Amino acid sequence: MICVLSGGTGGAKFVDGLRQIIPAEDITIVVNTGDDLMWWGLYVSPDIDSITYVLSGMLSRERGWGVKGDTFLCLQAMGQLGEPTWFHAGDRDLAVHILRSRLLAEGKTLSEATAVISQKLGVKARILPMSDSRVETRVDTPIGELSFEEYFVQRWYQDPVNSVRFAGVSDAEPADGVLDAITKADAVLIAPSNPVSSIGPILAVPGIRDALCRARGKIAAVSPIVGSAPVAGPAGILMQAQGLPCSIAGVAKAYADFLDILVCDSRDARAAAELRQASLRVECTQTIMRSSEDKVALARTVLALATDTKLSARASGILSGAPADGSQ
Amino acid sequence: MICVLSGGTGGAKFVDGLRQIIPAEDITIVVNTGDDLMWWGLYVSPDIDSITYVLSGMLSRERGWGVKGDTFLCLQAMGQLGEPTWFHAGDRDLAVHILRSRLLAEGKTLSEATAVISQKLGVKARILPMSDSRVETRVDTPIGELSFEEYFVQRWYQDPVNSVRFAGVSDAEPADGVLDAITKADAVLIAPSNPVSSIGPILAVPGIRDALCRARGKIAAVSPIVGSAPVAGPAGILMQAQGLPCSIAGVAKAYADFLDILVCDSRDARAAAELRQASLRVECTQTIMRSSEDKVALARTVLALATDTKLSARASGILSGAPADGSQ
Repeated sequence: MICVLSGGTGGAKFVDGLRQIIPAEDITIVVNTGDDLMWWGLYVSPDIDSITYVLSGMLSRERGWGVKGDTFLCLQAMGQLGEPTWFHAGDRDLAVHILRSRLLAEGKTLSEATAVISQKLGVKARILPMSDSRVETRVDTPIGELSFEEYFVQRWYQDPVNSVRFAGVSDAEPADGVLDAITKADAVLIAPSNPVSSIGPILAVPGIRDALCRARGKIAAVSPIVGSAPVAGPAGILMQAQGLPCSIAGVAKAYADFLDILVCDSRDARAAAELRQASLRVECTQTIMRSSEDKVALARTVLALATDTKLSARASGILSGAPADGSQ
Repeated sequence: MICVLSGGTGGAKFVDGLRQIIPAEDITIVVNTGDDLMWWGLYVSPDIDSITYVLSGMLSRERGWGVKGDTFLCLQAMGQLGEPTWFHAGDRDLAVHILRSRLLAEGKTLSEATAVISQKLGVKARILPMSDSRVETRVDTPIGELSFEEYFVQRWYQDPVNSVRFAGVSDAEPADGVLDAITKADAVLIAPSNPVSSIGPILAVPGIRDALCRARGKIAAVSPIVGSAPVAGPAGILMQAQGLPCSIAGVAKAYADFLDILVCDSRDARAAAELRQASLRVECTQTIMRSSEDKVALARTVLALATDTKLSARASGILSGAPADGSQ
């Protein structure tokens, strides 16, 4: 069994690669729910949706979120009704939000609702919300505290950030199965997701960090930072707000107490060498996932590292720090 | 002020004509809510929606319900999730269901939610649900008791009907403004809607029938039955189940205690003559609304009769029972 901790688009891409090299039944994904929001009165769980859609083959790869080929007529109509439209819920996408909301209203937990929806969509991997309690990532900015989606989607992460907190997390418990999935996995892979706002909320749920420290499998994280910039999104800003340098060293620091292997981009070979002196195992490979092949190659490399599988010649080449295909 | 009692598609067509001849501000429509249903966990009020859409110019005239040009991608996606799809909620249409559900969840009454949505869509007429309490039209059939939409939409009104009841109606109160709208109107017009399942629930709300009996304006009803068959839908079956003949006499009987004028189709001239002997005023005109002109002509005729306005030569011609345009 392989356990993945995952957030938004980077996490979905990584899982897209992983599902192509091992049976989906062998994957458990523990997903951030700090971005969850009530939208038009419906409960929306953006990161669970992205993972569900990628595993069911429904994800729009162009956008990296939502359902491929979706339309936005309900959104338009909502605008005519004077409702907000900054969160782009598509017409097909809405089906999941409506069903989940009804299941929750009927008393089901988020885990149960997630399992029902996954099963209906033919997903064979196990998707677990980090917690069935409501944990809200709140971003403190000069204009006030924003929910993560307000900060990220509505305001295009343009606001300076003072700090980030996870409202409700001290009372939250890991969802059923989360601690076991982590401690008993053959390997725990941390997707190249934002360490503060995607992986941070998962780690903040009482018990999860401790489970990582005592996991029997190796723990490998893929850095979402290349050089001194995030591959996408506000990871840099948020890391700095939380006192972490925006670099692979910052990622290493965020996961310091439990990380066995940090996988970073080949362009960070020099920084990787420095980090190794701090006795962390750091491996370089191509981490930018542009094509389907990129996703598969990265997943294969990370999985091999974390499970100590003998790497193929090609993967060894990648790991030596030399570009494997001359594309860089 | 003109008050209209209305149900489904026939009511929407009639109101479509009326709004073209008097200012929308002068119209109050009291609408059946017996068809309301929870659909995918959302509160749907089909008859209020039809009236709202016709008054905002959004109604699909081809279908007679829903939003023109709408698509059904969420419905398709719901089908993939294993949810029922027999009630055709369109993508644009969903916006109203979602917003209404949220307003109700926030504690607003159905009247308040209806007013918010009407106002957002630029509707100037006043749309009042018959009641803010839940009243459910239940159709007893050999396969068991069905909600009206199950009977009508899901099962295409193919089941024999033993009886119809309005669950919850004895505890229901008319919504704010309903009694005043009826008693103080210059005229009350009963749309050519099903007397049992569209107008019946309205009349069953305690206080409404009494208000009709003491209304200061005249009360005119348009028969939805032509000859011995309804213009559309299951009116005939349901009238028979309730002990009413499927004829204009049955319509007259349903409204006997308060009706001043029955407007029936020119093809019912003979039956009309018989009814007149029972001292009811019965007028014949073309009641089938195929074109926009038909709707306007019918509304004009009924309004003139109910407000005692001197009719134009053309309308007088219609009322004599002779076809006005030779189309019959």
